[in-house]
Amino acid sequence: MTRLRILLAQLPVRVGDLDGNAAAVREAMGRAERATVDVLVTPEMTVTGYPCEDLLAEPAFVAAAESATLTLADHAARTVSLVGTPWTAAALPAAGGARAQAWTTDATPRPLRNAAVLLHDGRVAAAHAKHLLPTYSVFDDARHFGAGVRDQALYRLETPDGPVVLGVLVCEDAWDTDLVTEVAAAGAQVVVVLNASPYTVGKPALRLAQLRAAAAAAGVPLGYVNAVGGQDDLVYDGGSLVVDADGTVLARAAAFVADELVVDVPVAPARPVTRDLVDLGPTHPWRTTVAAPAVAEPMDADAEVYRALVTGFGDYCRRVGMPKVVLGLSGGIDSALAAVVAVDALGPDAVWGVGMPGPYSSDGSVTDAAELAAHLGIRFDVVPIGAPYVEREATLGALLADAVGGTGHPVAWENLQARLRGTTLMTLANATGALVCTTGNRSESAVGYFTLYGDSCGTTPNPLGDLLKTTVTLRDGTVLPGVYGLARWRNAQATAAGQVPPIPVSTLTKPASAELAPGQQDSDSLPPYEVLDALLVTFLEEHATADELAAGLVEQGWDPTVAAATVNRVLGLVDRSEFKRRQVPMRVKVSRLAFGRDRRMPVASHWSHATASAPAPLAALAGSSAHAPSSGTVAR
Amino acid sequence: MTRLRILLAQLPVRVGDLDGNAAAVREAMGRAERATVDVLVTPEMTVTGYPCEDLLAEPAFVAAAESATLTLADHAARTVSLVGTPWTAAALPAAGGARAQAWTTDATPRPLRNAAVLLHDGRVAAAHAKHLLPTYSVFDDARHFGAGVRDQALYRLETPDGPVVLGVLVCEDAWDTDLVTEVAAAGAQVVVVLNASPYTVGKPALRLAQLRAAAAAAGVPLGYVNAVGGQDDLVYDGGSLVVDADGTVLARAAAFVADELVVDVPVAPARPVTRDLVDLGPTHPWRTTVAAPAVAEPMDADAEVYRALVTGFGDYCRRVGMPKVVLGLSGGIDSALAAVVAVDALGPDAVWGVGMPGPYSSDGSVTDAAELAAHLGIRFDVVPIGAPYVEREATLGALLADAVGGTGHPVAWENLQARLRGTTLMTLANATGALVCTTGNRSESAVGYFTLYGDSCGTTPNPLGDLLKTTVTLRDGTVLPGVYGLARWRNAQATAAGQVPPIPVSTLTKPASAELAPGQQDSDSLPPYEVLDALLVTFLEEHATADELAAGLVEQGWDPTVAAATVNRVLGLVDRSEFKRRQVPMRVKVSRLAFGRDRRMPVASHWSHATASAPAPLAALAGSSAHAPSSGTVAR
Repeated sequence: MTRLRILLAQLPVRVGDLDGNAAAVREAMGRAERATVDVLVTPEMTVTGYPCEDLLAEPAFVAAAESATLTLADHAARTVSLVGTPWTAAALPAAGGARAQAWTTDATPRPLRNAAVLLHDGRVAAAHAKHLLPTYSVFDDARHFGAGVRDQALYRLETPDGPVVLGVLVCEDAWDTDLVTEVAAAGAQVVVVLNASPYTVGKPALRLAQLRAAAAAAGVPLGYVNAVGGQDDLVYDGGSLVVDADGTVLARAAAFVADELVVDVPVAPARPVTRDLVDLGPTHPWRTTVAAPAVAEPMDADAEVYRALVTGFGDYCRRVGMPKVVLGLSGGIDSALAAVVAVDALGPDAVWGVGMPGPYSSDGSVTDAAELAAHLGIRFDVVPIGAPYVEREATLGALLADAVGGTGHPVAWENLQARLRGTTLMTLANATGALVCTTGNRSESAVGYFTLYGDSCGTTPNPLGDLLKTTVTLRDGTVLPGVYGLARWRNAQATAAGQVPPIPVSTLTKPASAELAPGQQDSDSLPPYEVLDALLVTFLEEHATADELAAGLVEQGWDPTVAAATVNRVLGLVDRSEFKRRQVPMRVKVSRLAFGRDRRMPVASHWSHATASAPAPLAALAGSSAHAPSSGTVAR
Repeated sequence: MTRLRILLAQLPVRVGDLDGNAAAVREAMGRAERATVDVLVTPEMTVTGYPCEDLLAEPAFVAAAESATLTLADHAARTVSLVGTPWTAAALPAAGGARAQAWTTDATPRPLRNAAVLLHDGRVAAAHAKHLLPTYSVFDDARHFGAGVRDQALYRLETPDGPVVLGVLVCEDAWDTDLVTEVAAAGAQVVVVLNASPYTVGKPALRLAQLRAAAAAAGVPLGYVNAVGGQDDLVYDGGSLVVDADGTVLARAAAFVADELVVDVPVAPARPVTRDLVDLGPTHPWRTTVAAPAVAEPMDADAEVYRALVTGFGDYCRRVGMPKVVLGLSGGIDSALAAVVAVDALGPDAVWGVGMPGPYSSDGSVTDAAELAAHLGIRFDVVPIGAPYVEREATLGALLADAVGGTGHPVAWENLQARLRGTTLMTLANATGALVCTTGNRSESAVGYFTLYGDSCGTTPNPLGDLLKTTVTLRDGTVLPGVYGLARWRNAQATAAGQVPPIPVSTLTKPASAELAPGQQDSDSLPPYEVLDALLVTFLEEHATADELAAGLVEQGWDPTVAAATVNRVLGLVDRSEFKRRQVPMRVKVSRLAFGRDRRMPVASHWSHATASAPAPLAALAGSSAHAPSSGTVAR
């Protein structure tokens, strides 16, 4: 059986770091050459990182990427190196024939392609363009790229083991089983895929299932290379792999770290080639011996999500050159878990915890925070906000008495406490060159249960911003860990390793409270988090209507009137807090539908999800409600 | 010559207000029927508003739009009404033939179309799909819609004046002169276009030029209907019009207000029809007499931009049901112009000005603000921030002395002042159910010359957020008014109307200063605004490189070293303040390339525009610089 030796280069690609990315590719090319590799595969858009967004609108940026790729070509020897890069027809050294085909028949006049450029023997031998350009979820590929044609060329290599016909796909292409099957039917004996595939919960398992299904349907092995590392709100989880045509995992790289595997892939039997065939010629004349490749074990859901948070949070801080954070510790579960993530990402010396008790804070607020800080070995200081709060309350209260005859809406004074805390953290961070880590969770973000410019202040991605408060099992069986679940899991990890569990027991067990009013608890304003979270996931990720959600509660034994009122309240809060979510820090995306670029909603919208069958004008919702649209006054 | 009677319904469409939008269409249908109109044309996506963004991902939303459209069909009589709406193949009552054609041959499996549905005689007679789906600028059409085929059907009507073959296009389609020409060549004698075309500076003139060119090339008259009103950051400016095949403007609706015109359009001679032809049958048996349509005069650049700001700002506040704002008045030009826009949009009783002098505020800060408020007739109060500033400075200063042996970066204390002001405004707004209007301009936003969570606090769209400080003439001759220019223009308008010019002379003439440090002026930190603004526009809108910008300054007589240093400083600031722009309020878009969804940039990017030819890693820029990336410490 003929074997193709491929090197999966799972690189920590960084957006905009053309020099650094190209250097990493060049080093991998050297290792591939020494290991007599036939085909080196890098992630999608390796030269520039992904997504580059509107940097791709700049001719100088694209030209620099093409120039870096041409320089890499100078170093190409016997190994055929597939390098992901933006690429234009103009940059193709030899136009015409199969090589230019990817550029000639697209309906749109856009010249740029999301390409896999094939480097060999000191030159750009060919360039292959992504066919399917995703425009859903976080993806905007059609904003930047034209599509490569569906029936692009195949590539013939003369390996030490005999000739092999190679098919090439880029990311989204491999999720279309028909497309993979067509490539194999046209004569490919093995297909390699360049990816920048962001992590979401359960994605590694989903990816494996898709690759197995596609390989089986096509009857060819697939080599899949993913990027790794955090890029703004996205985390690439790596986990590059090779599946055989029968679905066997021949090799799998580690998750969430840079890794590299050399795999001798048994290719499918030769078939007649029915597409343009680019003959790349011989690779190496002989082969070295290589060790059997690793097959990394999959992680469980808690470990996977936690590693995604640590990776996304830490890489952002390192990539912007400020790996030092300040965060408020309230003694609550959210700030506790955020602090643990920050310490795991950046180390205890880089994390500064600040307790900021206010007029309604419990004693436990400071003692629990201090205990957490001691467990983590981080600096902890207490800076009460009482003095400025009392001053602003008196000054603004007097003004409001004159202006409106009273102190106005009580939520304003809750928000004031949160904003004085945010201001305090930002001052400490600005003074010391640190970032501020905000700690609100996805449940709170969904219903606007936070203070804009208050507890939402932050200049890192929010590590918890895409975590619900509680763990939810999705309809397909995927477990979506929540804040409590991950906190307990992290404590258990510490116990298993013989360390002190970082999060204090009382933080894990006390009722959730914002402590912004006497005796306040989250459950005064919101349904129990188990109920809220289940509603939110079904609404956000499955687009369930209010009626469907209420029917679901009734099935669980709820009174129909209470069910409808609960659902309407929750969906109304989601709709009316869109204006706040527009101004909060990005969050590390781990869910299948995160707030941010993954869910783009109008702010001034008259559509009400609470009453989808009979939309009410927004104006009717304003006024008496504490949750008035766009007021910034939504609870907390 | 055969004439087609069309009604241009320039409606103030609101996103998500299906009932309200449908009611407006129904009323227009009634008026059209009474005026014996052959064809009623509404804006693109009239039923739902545009852009609906990810509401379109919700089956219930699309179903409601289709249902509202079918209800409209029940009311359709002799007039053929073209209604913009999302539409799926499944919603088409009669499948097969020309009517289903728009849905059958698209390459993507996406079922939803951005459609013009033709209602006639109590039924949906046909549905026509947008062919060109823009994915540039603020547009995400390919995220939601599949493309209609290029060679869709034409429509035959039997009018009192004889038979007419009608072509239909949706928005972007009309910007492709070839496409318009193909429609005419295939037999259309007149083409109507449904639009939701957002305002940008010079757009009305550009639109007219394109329509004239397309009409002339195609040899047919064009009827163009635009939406009107503010939707989040976008403003639809109306200005619906009819151009004859020779380029004559036969009718033009008013700009920035709801309007309606009935026009008897002389159609082109009949030609052989080479596409599927849907026979809609007879319209009216006879015609009433109608007055000659209005031809509104175009506005000058200042008036046009100012009206866009007032419309966008006011409609947002009204659409979210909170038409009342609080804003900080510093005595400076930005807050003065913002206050005037707010008063022009909402009236003086709806605007509350607050002066918040701090330790470094000039006397003029309060007196100029008070004078402005008196001219505008708005409430004005003074709330000093000295007390909480002194308290936080002492408390945090002591903590920092212990933690880092000093008071840290001085910008932290400037930011503290701005944040105490932002907190004060938000408290007053939250207490009284008002919105906060922020007042930073595009020049400041570009270089990060503002305090995140400070002067950038705001829950309305920023009325000045897309205005440069100074007026710039673009390369194509379009004048892009700035803050100073519009302020002077607005004062002159008042003078011409015999009113007191609202903005005090000293506000117009004093040097720009943030007044956050002793004797501080903007020019200490930034190049003169005339220089800065010219560089910014060329960089942002024309993607000029650092080298090109520096060469431009040298041409103007600058020393090459100073030119390069100035450009590098400006572009470095733009790059490094991306994290701040992600968290500021949306702004009313008037420029051709606004910050926000019009310019999507990565935050953690290693690409440096300052040194495009040799990108430096971000880490090298951090540390000693006051403008450290992602720190929140950039000047102010």
